[in-house]
Amino acid sequence: MSTIFFKNKPSVVGWYSVAGKKESEGPLGNTFSRVVKDEYYGEKTHEAAERKLFVTAIQGVMRDAALSPDAVFAGDLLNQIVSASFAMRDIGLPYVGIYGACSTMALSLIVAASYVDAGLIKTAIAAAGSHFATAERQYRTPLEFGNQRPPSAQWTVTGAGATLLTNQKKSAIVATSATIGRVIDYGIKDVNNMGAAMAPAAADTLARHFKNTKTKPNDYDAIFTGDLGRIGEEALRDLLKDEGYVLGDNYYDCGKLVYSGKQKVDMGGSGCGCSAITLNGFIFSKLQTGEYQRVLFMATGALLSPTTSYQGESIPSVANAIVFEHQKQQTEVNSK
Amino acid sequence: MSTIFFKNKPSVVGWYSVAGKKESEGPLGNTFSRVVKDEYYGEKTHEAAERKLFVTAIQGVMRDAALSPDAVFAGDLLNQIVSASFAMRDIGLPYVGIYGACSTMALSLIVAASYVDAGLIKTAIAAAGSHFATAERQYRTPLEFGNQRPPSAQWTVTGAGATLLTNQKKSAIVATSATIGRVIDYGIKDVNNMGAAMAPAAADTLARHFKNTKTKPNDYDAIFTGDLGRIGEEALRDLLKDEGYVLGDNYYDCGKLVYSGKQKVDMGGSGCGCSAITLNGFIFSKLQTGEYQRVLFMATGALLSPTTSYQGESIPSVANAIVFEHQKQQTEVNSK
Repeated sequence: MSTIFFKNKPSVVGWYSVAGKKESEGPLGNTFSRVVKDEYYGEKTHEAAERKLFVTAIQGVMRDAALSPDAVFAGDLLNQIVSASFAMRDIGLPYVGIYGACSTMALSLIVAASYVDAGLIKTAIAAAGSHFATAERQYRTPLEFGNQRPPSAQWTVTGAGATLLTNQKKSAIVATSATIGRVIDYGIKDVNNMGAAMAPAAADTLARHFKNTKTKPNDYDAIFTGDLGRIGEEALRDLLKDEGYVLGDNYYDCGKLVYSGKQKVDMGGSGCGCSAITLNGFIFSKLQTGEYQRVLFMATGALLSPTTSYQGESIPSVANAIVFEHQKQQTEVNSK
Repeated sequence: MSTIFFKNKPSVVGWYSVAGKKESEGPLGNTFSRVVKDEYYGEKTHEAAERKLFVTAIQGVMRDAALSPDAVFAGDLLNQIVSASFAMRDIGLPYVGIYGACSTMALSLIVAASYVDAGLIKTAIAAAGSHFATAERQYRTPLEFGNQRPPSAQWTVTGAGATLLTNQKKSAIVATSATIGRVIDYGIKDVNNMGAAMAPAAADTLARHFKNTKTKPNDYDAIFTGDLGRIGEEALRDLLKDEGYVLGDNYYDCGKLVYSGKQKVDMGGSGCGCSAITLNGFIFSKLQTGEYQRVLFMATGALLSPTTSYQGESIPSVANAIVFEHQKQQTEVNSK
């Protein structure tokens, strides 16, 4: 059994998102806590800018929530997750490095919520982020190379998000359950078609989650995947149909939400930051007001490295899911 | 508070280590579950060999313990922790990717033990591993380059270890507490002197652990660091003395234990596999028999990437500590 039920329902008492210029010009532009228009964020390298996004998000959520966390659970896409690790020099808190590729926001949240739910620690931060320029350089080619993008490519989001969970006070949003992903590999080798590679893992986790929690897609006001993009989204719908689950109009992909159709991002947004900034703004805001009563947030990750691709390997993928509920609904359900 | 006390004392019911030829010729040679003398392990690349070491260790511990685990917590040193992630394709269990550089065995154990202690899952595997040839290629230069090693260098262990923890049955070894590390950076930039870079993080975690658990170095039959090597070990002793703690003859470094002085490994062994194969053999065996009643196992990690070094950054480090006790002593303490 890989679905976790949070008995004590950890409270989401704070969230913070910092996004880049392109993201600020998209449909979610007014939902971010902060926008940084300089792609270098005042630093000398894009890598240093990415870690500064982490520091901004983590310090932002700590300041806003006015709670002192016991530990930070975080990761990113760069080799040796250096953005999260280097950022933690400035934060000074105990730190658990998490790697789930683009599923890292969800995976960090699952582990953070588990610790808080169990009472092993009182307050935790989960964080993830990415940067377009660093991801291009590391996974494809440096921007200066001027590589042509195939139409199936996705655009790595520049931004970071952080969530603060606690068992010390109540809030309008709680985490109620989560399903940890399994590594699935359908043999896809095209590094410019991550959506297709990740869809099978997404279908596996969603189907297991629905089964273990005895829920159906319509039991959620909204279901979000991280960054499947258009191809991946269609593949997920097809694969889930085979499992007996039909995704309706309540299904969204953060990769499609974050940019508008006019922004030339091909299949949509991607990267750890994509789901991180969508969750820590747009999604949590709607959960806070009660517009969403129950949300399934599932981010997917492609677990490749450039080395494995050079060596001719296919792309194993994973998807991690966590459910957030508006507290009022939770109370009603409990009192039945 | 960053020290976790495991109230339900998760049982260590299985451990497995697989080591390479050089490791098998060292002082711990007869403590490994399996030795693989072919550095390619029958695969075409060293990277594929490394992930096969993971599969061997995880399948080995599952077979020996005859328990079906709910999840695997694992990581390694390669970019995007591909050894652990790719191995998980063959294992098929829910998977949480953990990154703590060479502290990954300890960090994976802490998270796995936390989940089992909390009852969020029943049985978990923690695993970590490394390979000399893949680490040299990624962090320094490919072996074919024939790079000269400075005397402060360490030798990455070829091997992997896996531990199985459960709340479903009792065993002679239990996890009792753990301290999660903070990222510490003293400004050291020499990638051939990891011991010096990691010692301050080791001192920080050890001092916090002693303080939070109200213990002293002599309260443990043995204290193991992961791979500080000779320089790092001396630095740790000095730094801890400043904090009021004197490490005695019960302090060992896995990096020094795993190879003999005749094996030309400079400062000693290193890599995720170093502490992983020492713990999942030598250390657990002595805890099983009761020769060790209480052991503090702390692995350190240097959180750099080649990119950060090229960009002139220093080396942030972390250390994660977990305490294992022989069950009999535990019972006596409880009955007082």
